[in-house]
Amino acid sequence: MNGAQALIRTLVGSGVRVCFSNPGTSEMHFVAALDAVPQMRGVLCLFEGVATGAADGYGRMTGGPAAVLLHLGPGLANGLANLHNARRARTPLLVVVGDHATYHKRYDAPLESDIDALAGSVSAWVRRSARSAEVAADAAEAVAAARIPPGQVATLILPADVSWSDGAEPAAALPLRTPPLVAGDAARSAAAALRGGEPCVILIGGPGTRRPGLEAASQVAEGTGARLLCETFPARLERGAGIPAVDRLAYLGEFAAGQLSGARHLILAGARAPVAFFAYPGQPSSLVPQDCEVHVLAEPSEDVCAALAALADLVAPDAKPLLQAAERPEVPDGDLTGPAAAAVIGALLPEGAIVSDEANTSGVWLPGATAGAPPHDWLTLTGGSIGLGLPLATGAAIACPPRPVLALEADGSAMYTLSALWTHAREGLDVTTVIFSNGSYAILNMELSRVGADPAGEAARSLLELSRPGLDFVALATGMGVPATRATTADELVDQLGRALATPGPSVIEAVVPSIV
Amino acid sequence: MNGAQALIRTLVGSGVRVCFSNPGTSEMHFVAALDAVPQMRGVLCLFEGVATGAADGYGRMTGGPAAVLLHLGPGLANGLANLHNARRARTPLLVVVGDHATYHKRYDAPLESDIDALAGSVSAWVRRSARSAEVAADAAEAVAAARIPPGQVATLILPADVSWSDGAEPAAALPLRTPPLVAGDAARSAAAALRGGEPCVILIGGPGTRRPGLEAASQVAEGTGARLLCETFPARLERGAGIPAVDRLAYLGEFAAGQLSGARHLILAGARAPVAFFAYPGQPSSLVPQDCEVHVLAEPSEDVCAALAALADLVAPDAKPLLQAAERPEVPDGDLTGPAAAAVIGALLPEGAIVSDEANTSGVWLPGATAGAPPHDWLTLTGGSIGLGLPLATGAAIACPPRPVLALEADGSAMYTLSALWTHAREGLDVTTVIFSNGSYAILNMELSRVGADPAGEAARSLLELSRPGLDFVALATGMGVPATRATTADELVDQLGRALATPGPSVIEAVVPSIV
Repeated sequence: MNGAQALIRTLVGSGVRVCFSNPGTSEMHFVAALDAVPQMRGVLCLFEGVATGAADGYGRMTGGPAAVLLHLGPGLANGLANLHNARRARTPLLVVVGDHATYHKRYDAPLESDIDALAGSVSAWVRRSARSAEVAADAAEAVAAARIPPGQVATLILPADVSWSDGAEPAAALPLRTPPLVAGDAARSAAAALRGGEPCVILIGGPGTRRPGLEAASQVAEGTGARLLCETFPARLERGAGIPAVDRLAYLGEFAAGQLSGARHLILAGARAPVAFFAYPGQPSSLVPQDCEVHVLAEPSEDVCAALAALADLVAPDAKPLLQAAERPEVPDGDLTGPAAAAVIGALLPEGAIVSDEANTSGVWLPGATAGAPPHDWLTLTGGSIGLGLPLATGAAIACPPRPVLALEADGSAMYTLSALWTHAREGLDVTTVIFSNGSYAILNMELSRVGADPAGEAARSLLELSRPGLDFVALATGMGVPATRATTADELVDQLGRALATPGPSVIEAVVPSIV
Repeated sequence: MNGAQALIRTLVGSGVRVCFSNPGTSEMHFVAALDAVPQMRGVLCLFEGVATGAADGYGRMTGGPAAVLLHLGPGLANGLANLHNARRARTPLLVVVGDHATYHKRYDAPLESDIDALAGSVSAWVRRSARSAEVAADAAEAVAAARIPPGQVATLILPADVSWSDGAEPAAALPLRTPPLVAGDAARSAAAALRGGEPCVILIGGPGTRRPGLEAASQVAEGTGARLLCETFPARLERGAGIPAVDRLAYLGEFAAGQLSGARHLILAGARAPVAFFAYPGQPSSLVPQDCEVHVLAEPSEDVCAALAALADLVAPDAKPLLQAAERPEVPDGDLTGPAAAAVIGALLPEGAIVSDEANTSGVWLPGATAGAPPHDWLTLTGGSIGLGLPLATGAAIACPPRPVLALEADGSAMYTLSALWTHAREGLDVTTVIFSNGSYAILNMELSRVGADPAGEAARSLLELSRPGLDFVALATGMGVPATRATTADELVDQLGRALATPGPSVIEAVVPSIV
């Protein structure tokens, strides 16, 4: 068989069953081979950033990698921003980038570019397959690399002739690594801090933001009085009624400083020591308070949940985690403000929902309004590169049928990868998208003064607003085959969101809200 | 003044007057400084690939660089694909990428990534400004680098604190280099070939595809019997009535082989030796016929037009260039096929139009149908990375008011950077966009068999079609504030294109055509 067939069979044998694709001529043999291996599902995306963001969502929800198929350097370039987010989420993800035939590269054809440099910027593992006879082994190794705990981006560069030449055979899956257990010293150091009587904060991140980690962390907090916080942008946070609630560290440094104020010990459980998202004149880069000692209980690559459980055994064996009570906001009426929209969502969020949250400034009321909703997963913008929310929802929906997916999306961010909606329609995905339409890059209007660039003039302000002309997301969604409505009051949002959640398949609601800035 | 103000004043002093922008927090001082320097026009784009493609169009039409302002590594990543096209077009283009403050980088904040690696993949010149006192000199050097003939991508990385810190002063513009004259040996070698009686082909490219180069080349051809061809994807080809007509070398290698068949001498005038766009099993990578000697008359970086003029003086001093006669196709009626759509465009193309051509397979009849239209410029997909056409039109329209701009765009390619339409509306640009809607990545259906991957099955074919669901470009354009219509017959296209061209401001026509495959 040819290299492409052996490659796809190897991927399937290694547990990779979905390939988000935006192929070109150099990938045609890979595409053709999909018919020979029906266990691999090809999902067409109209832009590479949709494919990579979808693979991120898939990997976050399954723990195993999806593949993405991209076309040469420019195709990889278009997918890089969401690979950056996946890298920050530590998502297992396999990139297959087609390249020119090995013998063709030296001719510097128009699409030739430095794929290796681009791949290296986001990938923990990069290999260029040299021969058909080796591509299957390369693929098996790529999957294993992507699954090194907790997960990482692995990129396999596939020359066209390696793909089309015969002489290949599938390779067996490689054994998976399990996350290393944390040495007892780390737990003992954290335990000593917790027993010392000084204020302690436990910052949970990485694989610790799932139910077992949260339960163990809450047990520790209940038994010791430590405060619990979660990293600002968790890859996947389990939350809702019956799960310990944990506040996320604030995006705004001044609020984060308040959350960490007075802490003398900061215990990191799968999280990194907190830093400011951006630099601001005169503000510190590190958010760790002065005179606060940092203890690393577990690195993100380690078994964070086991480390938290071990810590609970040490310091609070008899404590019980504090579970979030079931509670929902009252359904609001009247104007559709940010708080009202959040309350509607909190009132209606279905059990088992997967929320892809890129609502940005319009979403600041969402965590509070949804805290006591039925159990759900919350996926966030881990790397800060906007344009992730809609693709992430795509991948989550393909990963977890029949769970309902709710994409909460800011208008400015939506425009980066809007064609994800077309894939929602094509694949019949049960994704309900709420686009918070405030006609502004509101976060930048806020940041303009925070970085000290105010008072800004007309030229500056005009570069931050989206209202000349306004974006009509009902028309945009409809144009890609997704039914859409517009809500301008709380009542309308209640009605439209209720119907959208009750109806299988994709839908879009443009929620017209005022900008908070 | 702060670094940002000095930077922008330096750019203006160096002739840069437009900045296509998609900024973020780290660029807020640059944005704020725009109000202090009103000679710099900030143009907001909703996606970085629109900004870079627009800067490419601007640079192709003015010969001087526009700036693009991008946000950190992910913003640059989103702009890379069209920077790749600009690199292949040899367009003068200045990229300003904001970065974290110098002291903040070591904290590895979420948006941190390897900007230098990304920039290096497309830029001939990269610098990271280290201090406010140096940023103006860096900027002057960046503009000079971008303008090294015929043009190149220069990237200046601007840390946030370099932007916001005081102590900067504008720097003077640096002197511009002119393209080096070609040594007489090159012209004499070409002249000897032309006089030798063997079949000769002159392949024109780079700066040679403008009227002076074409006239000199045509003079040579008329005087010697040499055949004239133009590179497959010229950055800017002047053509139409009164300008020598030149066929472009075909994209398909088998057709290109026919065009070059029998040639014993290939004279390169600003073009590179032709290579296959992709590798195909059993097909050669080089398109130069066997037993054909290659003569480099002028490199793209040299004064190609002067070299052609010198050659004409040597071999054909008394010949006259053969100028294209004025002629237009008859206005068709009936079904809206590809040939009919091309005839409509050829019949209506206004004098002085700038055509941004990314019509792909639907556009194969366009060159013939427009050859005798009034003089116009034709801009093409130089690097093969789709998603250029609409942004290129954006930049051309901003570069050359009041010239009418016609964007001819394939449906699949349109979806990569569709939000360029919003900038067309926002800036009131006189861009008429015709989207050839055939519901297919038709070129890939063609390539599937050309690379030998046929017969393809259902899974493969489904990854190449855009008809499930269909894309409604009238709704999509309307949603971004651009008036739009749909043409399903030749008559409708005549009517709609006539009205669109007669009406100032942007418009979109979805031309529903059959796929050629």
